[in-house]
Amino acid sequence: MNQYYSKQLFVNDIIAAFIVTALLIPQSIAYAMLAGLPPQVGLFSSILPIVVYSLFGSSTTLSVGPVAIISLMTASAIGSVSENVDVGYAEASIVLALLSGLFLVLFGLFRLGLIINFISKPVVSGFITASSLIIVAKQIDHFSAFDISSFNSTLALGVTCLTILLLNKQFGTQIFSRLMPAGIANLISKAVPFLLVVLASCMSFFFDLEAIGVAVVGYIPQGLPSISFAEVDVSIVEKLALPALMISLIGYVESVSVAQTLGAKKRETIIPNRELIGLGASNIASGLSGGMPVTGGFSRSAVNFEAGAATKLSNLYVALGVALAALFLTPYIYYLPKVVLASLIIVAVIGLMEFVVFKRTWLYSKSDFLAVAATVVITLTSGVEAGVISGVIISLCLHLYRTSKPHIAEVGLLEGTEHFRNVKRFDVTTCPRVLSVRQDESLFFANAEMLQAYVLNELYKRDQIAHVIIQCSAVNEVDYSALTMLENLNNKLFEQGVLLHLSEVKGPVDDKLATAGFYDRLTGNKYLSQYDAFEALKR
Amino acid sequence: MNQYYSKQLFVNDIIAAFIVTALLIPQSIAYAMLAGLPPQVGLFSSILPIVVYSLFGSSTTLSVGPVAIISLMTASAIGSVSENVDVGYAEASIVLALLSGLFLVLFGLFRLGLIINFISKPVVSGFITASSLIIVAKQIDHFSAFDISSFNSTLALGVTCLTILLLNKQFGTQIFSRLMPAGIANLISKAVPFLLVVLASCMSFFFDLEAIGVAVVGYIPQGLPSISFAEVDVSIVEKLALPALMISLIGYVESVSVAQTLGAKKRETIIPNRELIGLGASNIASGLSGGMPVTGGFSRSAVNFEAGAATKLSNLYVALGVALAALFLTPYIYYLPKVVLASLIIVAVIGLMEFVVFKRTWLYSKSDFLAVAATVVITLTSGVEAGVISGVIISLCLHLYRTSKPHIAEVGLLEGTEHFRNVKRFDVTTCPRVLSVRQDESLFFANAEMLQAYVLNELYKRDQIAHVIIQCSAVNEVDYSALTMLENLNNKLFEQGVLLHLSEVKGPVDDKLATAGFYDRLTGNKYLSQYDAFEALKR
Repeated sequence: MNQYYSKQLFVNDIIAAFIVTALLIPQSIAYAMLAGLPPQVGLFSSILPIVVYSLFGSSTTLSVGPVAIISLMTASAIGSVSENVDVGYAEASIVLALLSGLFLVLFGLFRLGLIINFISKPVVSGFITASSLIIVAKQIDHFSAFDISSFNSTLALGVTCLTILLLNKQFGTQIFSRLMPAGIANLISKAVPFLLVVLASCMSFFFDLEAIGVAVVGYIPQGLPSISFAEVDVSIVEKLALPALMISLIGYVESVSVAQTLGAKKRETIIPNRELIGLGASNIASGLSGGMPVTGGFSRSAVNFEAGAATKLSNLYVALGVALAALFLTPYIYYLPKVVLASLIIVAVIGLMEFVVFKRTWLYSKSDFLAVAATVVITLTSGVEAGVISGVIISLCLHLYRTSKPHIAEVGLLEGTEHFRNVKRFDVTTCPRVLSVRQDESLFFANAEMLQAYVLNELYKRDQIAHVIIQCSAVNEVDYSALTMLENLNNKLFEQGVLLHLSEVKGPVDDKLATAGFYDRLTGNKYLSQYDAFEALKR
Repeated sequence: MNQYYSKQLFVNDIIAAFIVTALLIPQSIAYAMLAGLPPQVGLFSSILPIVVYSLFGSSTTLSVGPVAIISLMTASAIGSVSENVDVGYAEASIVLALLSGLFLVLFGLFRLGLIINFISKPVVSGFITASSLIIVAKQIDHFSAFDISSFNSTLALGVTCLTILLLNKQFGTQIFSRLMPAGIANLISKAVPFLLVVLASCMSFFFDLEAIGVAVVGYIPQGLPSISFAEVDVSIVEKLALPALMISLIGYVESVSVAQTLGAKKRETIIPNRELIGLGASNIASGLSGGMPVTGGFSRSAVNFEAGAATKLSNLYVALGVALAALFLTPYIYYLPKVVLASLIIVAVIGLMEFVVFKRTWLYSKSDFLAVAATVVITLTSGVEAGVISGVIISLCLHLYRTSKPHIAEVGLLEGTEHFRNVKRFDVTTCPRVLSVRQDESLFFANAEMLQAYVLNELYKRDQIAHVIIQCSAVNEVDYSALTMLENLNNKLFEQGVLLHLSEVKGPVDDKLATAGFYDRLTGNKYLSQYDAFEALKR
């Protein structure tokens, strides 16, 4: 922003802002509807949050606002709290946005951005796919109507919209690029949803579709809603805390992945803790301005990127555009048929579904498949929060289970090199007096006993062994339990007249073992490399 | 047992059995008292369980019965259930023993013996130390009495016993070995508690200590107690399920460590799943014969080992001995002062306390120290079950936290070898065109992004890099999230004109990456060793 803001930059920004705004208006209203909130809440969530994010966040292309998955989570959270407590939907959504923002800011201040790494890719894919299925199922409702006469018109309108949007998504850029340069064709294709919304609203107005029973968005009050915090019950905050935490985590995962994907194209580094603060602040801004939980969305950010926004000021113009829409366009939005919004949502979430992840994880690793499958099943059957939480717990348990059963290989020398490999996979040289064992995992409480059992078992089977070398190239940690095990093993081997040696101990592990005085008690030696150890002991 | 049972073997067995029985009688009564149960429950728990274990278990020296920690856990479980439900202590202890047995058998049948590996050494040490402190605090009560006159005699008797037992423990073998061969001296020293019990009972009888207010064991009914299962409320089973699970896990941890320690001296392999079944069956036997939860105890097993039991039949003779005691000795046990039993318990648990673990973990690893400290504090303040559970959860979280922040080192060639080490620790050769990175941890969801961030960051800092080699010697797993990361990294590097290579990929990881088709998309090559990779790319 230190550069001189030339007229050309201004024009670029304004054009980009216009295109992004055209996308945001119908999207925001649609996601508000998905969350079960009045349309204006969606618009409010696309004004201040955008500006606040660009002040605090680290990405120059991310565009924040309501997104599909977060809107579904919002709907679920508000739905369950309002069953038990007497609270308006709009108030609940404000509290939810504020709490999510607070969590994100706290994570950022305490540098806990790493926490999201515990939500594995299979869990994220499974969760987003299942949530998208739930969203589609919910939107199908909008394709029907109460009486049979309006049912047909609603269905016809919906199916038409859906067809146009799907065709546009699949072939739009291709078709338009026959008529104009590819760059512009791409943007026109992105503007199709907006044009469709305008067209459908005009049709609805001129043919008075509401009169024949087609559900329309209806009256939207002007101005910002207000919340009196004195009225907000503590029990509401308590009930919304867990959903808000989930929303903040999933929102952050989604947003950071968008920011990184677009950032890599510009050699732009995304700073996790700044992202947390940026997203947190924009959620707080959303809450304070009567909005709902927001995060960085892929489609809008991609459009922002492709539309060629030159500076961050472009975000300001977008905010201005949406604000103007909230002030002046709402009387026209009245006529917009809901089924058009439902089509927009369906097409958006179809793009999020990743069924291929089932096949890929099945082929790659059964435990990753299990994590995806469990997340999908639990999300579909027990709801979004249960889905995320169980997914995380299941993938952690599977990881722990795997690391607790480490791969332990006997290794031998690959002739002509100094390299040691598994005796079962390579044609290698060994020596009957020396047992070379490679532990393929850090040594910690959950697996320490396995190594001891393996070594003792080999020892009981073969009589000639006089030296055991543990090749520690894959041992990244030796915790206290494992240290105790090594000392026991050292003693037990000694009782059998066998010496224990270590090779290729990594620096950090070496330091710890030395501090504990382990090397003083070690009956054998420590060698820099497995090759040195083997050469010294094979005689 | 296939060998011919000679007279010599029989004599050895009988002698060992006699010594073990002499230890077991007072111990069993003391631990029943600790658990808040009538004395005979302790005796019943040392009859059938011993026989059943020797039929199913895999250790030939393990001696099962009531032990201090499990008795404390039993007291805590029964105490909390009987506050809420109307159930007798003896019935509750039977249900607890049956449930623990059931859990153990199930774990054994489903081969889940590994589950106990998740209870780390620091947690076990912390838990046992804290439990021992609680036990000592409880036993101190027995050193006082209601009125001042008996207070003095009780205290005097208690302090005398405690002094004798402590002196015997510290110097007993040494003193007796001046008078007799060391082996016998050791056993005599082990028999001191029994002799003390006999002596104190005689004193109590002849001087009628009960009359002057010294608390004695009192009347012990003969025969087995019966439980009518029709009367056992489901709610009792529900309330005892979690404590029973904890008892079975801690009991198994303790027992297996005893069995392995003694087993190593005889080159005897302890089979975890058979141990689970053996212990489970003996707990069920304990429950069915009116006993309490049992496990393999260190002191009794060590005595069994040292007394030179020749065959498993020795266990049968011990069971017979305790049964005879339960039938014929109870009238004499009446006079045994409780403070003597309290002294026995205190001396036993003092031996279990491991305060040195605080210092050792503090010096070795702060996170292990944290696990010990948390376990101790939570056990002391919130009880035994909370202590174990939080200890396990805390050590798992600390482990996950550590593996989520892996050590990543840039490596270079150690001149004159084919070995690569950290550039910061060794004087090694590097090449500005090649970035060699060693990931010191398996690549999985919690840390995958760290490697990507590290590589991209180095790339942005240095312009000359044309090749990135990831040395995978410490990568024991690449899960689906990490595979996705590697593919992203591969693409991002390619966009910058940099090729990605892997070296020293382990067999199991290599297979998975090949299956996923990763090598087809990899822009660089896969090398058998880091040395090969570096030599090929440094030009």
